[in-house]
Order: sequence, then structure tokens, then C-alpha cells
Amino acid sequence: MTGAWAAMQRVFEERGQQEIDEGRVAGLAALAARVRELSELLLLTRADEAEVAVVTRELEVLNRRLAEAGRGIPPAAEVGDGGVVRQLGSPVTGALNTLAPPIEIRVSADGTARSEFTLGVLYEGPPGFVHGGVSAMVLDHLSGCAASANGTPGMTAGLDLRYRRPTPLGVPLSAEAKAVRVDGRKTFVESRIIGPDGRSTAEATAVFIMPTR
Amino acid sequence: MTGAWAAMQRVFEERGQQEIDEGRVAGLAALAARVRELSELLLLTRADEAEVAVVTRELEVLNRRLAEAGRGIPPAAEVGDGGVVRQLGSPVTGALNTLAPPIEIRVSADGTARSEFTLGVLYEGPPGFVHGGVSAMVLDHLSGCAASANGTPGMTAGLDLRYRRPTPLGVPLSAEAKAVRVDGRKTFVESRIIGPDGRSTAEATAVFIMPTR
Repeated sequence: MTGAWAAMQRVFEERGQQEIDEGRVAGLAALAARVRELSELLLLTRADEAEVAVVTRELEVLNRRLAEAGRGIPPAAEVGDGGVVRQLGSPVTGALNTLAPPIEIRVSADGTARSEFTLGVLYEGPPGFVHGGVSAMVLDHLSGCAASANGTPGMTAGLDLRYRRPTPLGVPLSAEAKAVRVDGRKTFVESRIIGPDGRSTAEATAVFIMPTR
Repeated sequence: MTGAWAAMQRVFEERGQQEIDEGRVAGLAALAARVRELSELLLLTRADEAEVAVVTRELEVLNRRLAEAGRGIPPAAEVGDGGVVRQLGSPVTGALNTLAPPIEIRVSADGTARSEFTLGVLYEGPPGFVHGGVSAMVLDHLSGCAASANGTPGMTAGLDLRYRRPTPLGVPLSAEAKAVRVDGRKTFVESRIIGPDGRSTAEATAVFIMPTR
């Protein structure tokens, strides 16, 4: 684990040396929003095979333009207001990661990490409901934020999820996480996703361990 | 839970009435592959703000074309060879879902569900490593396949994840899941992700409960 931790620190530092041009980031975030729309359209469109083929060829041209500009490294994570980490490339919260809904997380004065979000058809598991693995991903990420907000970040050692009822798609959800106990190098975080009726749909207990250096 | 189960069955049946045109599906899968490339380029490209703006405007045109063809409903899940369910829209395995790596799952004669896959920069959590929530999503999904292959599908009631070491990005990984015990309406499934060195990076125990009808 120590080797992996050192490797993470190296990558983290390398990325931090990039300059962040906020205008360019806003432009890339707008592009990411369009890609999310395209992803949803791709699942739902009634376009026929010929029309899909035309769109595919035109998309190849756009990809080539971006590829010809050269490839760099992913954007740096930065610590923003209130200690919340802005990870532009995160698959859960990243404005520049088209996999991310994205969810925005804020941390209140008592250390609770909270978020409100709606998950569309791309996040579906059972017909009409959120994929259990997506709920797991959100709670894993939010729990990590709560551990960091507690001043005891670390590597996730365990995540124990209880699914109480199906989480509905396409309606406003909220989620919250809070560190409840620190025991030596271990931090325990409780988290949950809350449906529109105020009841928990999924709950988790996460354990984070601070690596030794 | 019974109400949600009935709702799932209704949506499932509605979708199953769609005709599946394999040529069109192949075309949409090719488009999805290009969208995955675009998503990765968006995180890595060195294109400047003006270039990104041009690509964004052209993508808006493509989205409009797909939107003007009208929106339908997501593709149906189908049971394919060997009882493996093909879910074209799944965020984990769906060829038409751009969030999915996608991972292909096969079930061997002894009921073990297995997959080999590589996760790129879009799936990153700690710098250089797979997001823990992504590992959770893969194990959740694979465990569900193993429960179904065992003839005892159901709703996920719990998923207990142990992260043994960081899971590396950009290298071949494998994962496997198998039902180990059935107790009344509960099925217990053990699963793990295996790194290139053959060691488990993450392990999980999942519990599935068959709904009463």
C-alpha cells in the first residue's frame, strides 16, 4: 500500500503543476454537458441506421480535431472553498468527466457532506430505478469527502451497503455522509441516499485508513 | 418493495415489445464507442478554448439531428446464450450506454460469472488508480449476474466491500462472482476484482432477496 500511496502522490503533484485556465475549463464543461445529452439521446433516439451512421462519421471528425491538438494529462484536483476538493476529472463529481452526473458536494459546518442530484436513464439498473452500483459509487465518493472534511482522509478499506428500497430514476434525490468515529488510523463514515419521500433508499458504513508514510 | 417490483415488471414488459434491429444496434454501438473516445479526449486534449467551442457547436448540431428523430424508450434487456442477460442500456455492461466500459460477462458451467476488462482514465479515483465506487459498481453488477445464473435472482439487499489494495488503471483486470449459499429467499454471492499480478484488489459479499409477489 505504501508504494501505491507514493505513486498517487507523484501523479497528484505532476498534475498540480498544470496551469488551470478557467475559461477553457468552462468551455470543456459545456462540451461535456453536450456529450451527456448525446449519451442519453443515443439510448432513446428513434433515428434510423443511416442517420446514426452519418452522426457517427461526423463525430469521428470532431474526435480527430481534439486528438490532433495533442493529449496531455488529466486536470489536477484542487482544494476549493470550505475544503471541498474540486476534481474536474472525477467519474462522480467531475464537470469534465462525462460519466459523472455530475453531483455537486458541499460540506456544512458540522462536517456533513451533502448533495442533491437527479439520475437519468443512463444510470438505470432495474427497469425504472437507479443501478445499485451507481448508488454505491455515489456513497463511496460522498463518504470519502466526509472523511476528508473530518481532517482524516485515507484510503477506503471497506464499504458496507444496505439497500432499503429501490432508488427512483428521474426524480430529485439527496445524499449525505458524516464521519462518526475515529479509531487510531481508521475513520468510520455513515452515509445514505434519500428519496423524494424523505426515506433512505440506500445506507452505507465506510471505513477509511490513513496510510503510513 | 412489492409495488416497486410490479413497476419494474411493467417497464420490462413494455420494453420487450420493441423490435430489435441488430443492424441498427450495431450502428448505435459504433456511435457509443466514438462517444467513449470523445469523453476520454475531452479529459486529455490540449485543444484551446476556441477549438473546444467549435467542437461544442458542431456536437450541438449532431444532438439536434438525433433529437429530431424523436425519443423512444430504452432498449429491452434480453436473455441470451447461456442465460446471460444482454442489457444494451446498462451503465456497466451496455454496448449502447457510453458510461459502461463496457464489460462483457460470461457464465461458466459451475455458475461463476467472469469478466476481463481494462479501465481507463474516465474511471479514475485516487490519482492513477480505479475509483473505489467503480469497483463497487462492477462487483454489484457481476454479483447480480451470478445470482441470476444460480436461478435465484432478486433485489440487492446488501453489498459488503473490502478494498484490499488500490486497483490499477489502464491494465487488464479480471473479476469473478459466484453464488455460495441460498437461505430461503436470500442468495449470498462472493465476488472479487483481480489485478494483473493475480492478487485480489477488492472483494465483496452480496445478498440478494427474491421479492414476494
